[in-house]
Amino acid sequence: MNNDMVKTIRQRRSIRVFTAQIPDKEAIEEILEAARWAPSGLNNQPWKFMVLEDEKIREGLSRFTAYKKIVRSAPISIVVCIDNDISYNRDKDLMAIGASIQNMLLCACSQGLGTCWLGEIINRKEEIKQYLKLESCLEIMAVIAIGYPGDNPEVGERRSLQELLITGK
Amino acid sequence: MNNDMVKTIRQRRSIRVFTAQIPDKEAIEEILEAARWAPSGLNNQPWKFMVLEDEKIREGLSRFTAYKKIVRSAPISIVVCIDNDISYNRDKDLMAIGASIQNMLLCACSQGLGTCWLGEIINRKEEIKQYLKLESCLEIMAVIAIGYPGDNPEVGERRSLQELLITGK
Repeated sequence: MNNDMVKTIRQRRSIRVFTAQIPDKEAIEEILEAARWAPSGLNNQPWKFMVLEDEKIREGLSRFTAYKKIVRSAPISIVVCIDNDISYNRDKDLMAIGASIQNMLLCACSQGLGTCWLGEIINRKEEIKQYLKLESCLEIMAVIAIGYPGDNPEVGERRSLQELLITGK
Repeated sequence: MNNDMVKTIRQRRSIRVFTAQIPDKEAIEEILEAARWAPSGLNNQPWKFMVLEDEKIREGLSRFTAYKKIVRSAPISIVVCIDNDISYNRDKDLMAIGASIQNMLLCACSQGLGTCWLGEIINRKEEIKQYLKLESCLEIMAVIAIGYPGDNPEVGERRSLQELLITGK
């Protein structure tokens, strides 16, 4: 663990409570820049992003998830979509979107911001799509809640490297 | 672009030619550590990794892809699998694996190593699975070629942020 990159990767945690402080425009732009520079198969960049700052709209979004407190607490949510008009291989494109999201989480963390990657919310992606009036080609894959950390969760747990390594051949 | 994280995210490129220098064990362990600390839905960690260093095995692997030169040039390849016994939601799990891969690419880059995320190779994932004698629950999602950069490709191209942002509502 000898450089900032690895430290940030290691120390990033899901933040579920945020302060009232609103991140400035530049910080959010930096996060979107990070998302934009993720790799993708054939460089197809299958991602689209919707930045939600308006309190009423975020409140409306929060009704679609069991984690409504997180969405309400965060001053900003970024809705992450796959653009099915651009997608050429769903497996590869979903991995690319995961890479793009991870860039956002790491970039936010490196700026002192906290994030929570909300996955459960996509159980109701069709209703949210209607609520946000998204184009038909867009499919919601995640919502990222962003703000200044209002809690300080413990470091997470992971399986040991030994359990993750495939031996043989 | 004011910190190392964002610089690394912005400057990382796919490396397709590598020098003969073999990365040391610690560098590869650091990359696997980075992979291990990615976020996943319900923290299910659906990823497994196989590190290929043996020249003969890498040569054998290279036969399954149009990009055989890259696999042959890189002193190390990491095969990335989804563990379907652990997977609970394929969409979310593929995004988690994408996040884990991006952690590897960024960690490698921060150490001066180059990587190439090979996606096309999964067109023949069933044959490769047999070749590597992988357990039935494992499904190959990518191969990451790793080594010291032997070329210096131009910075890639991306759509403008404007094109990626969803407006409306």
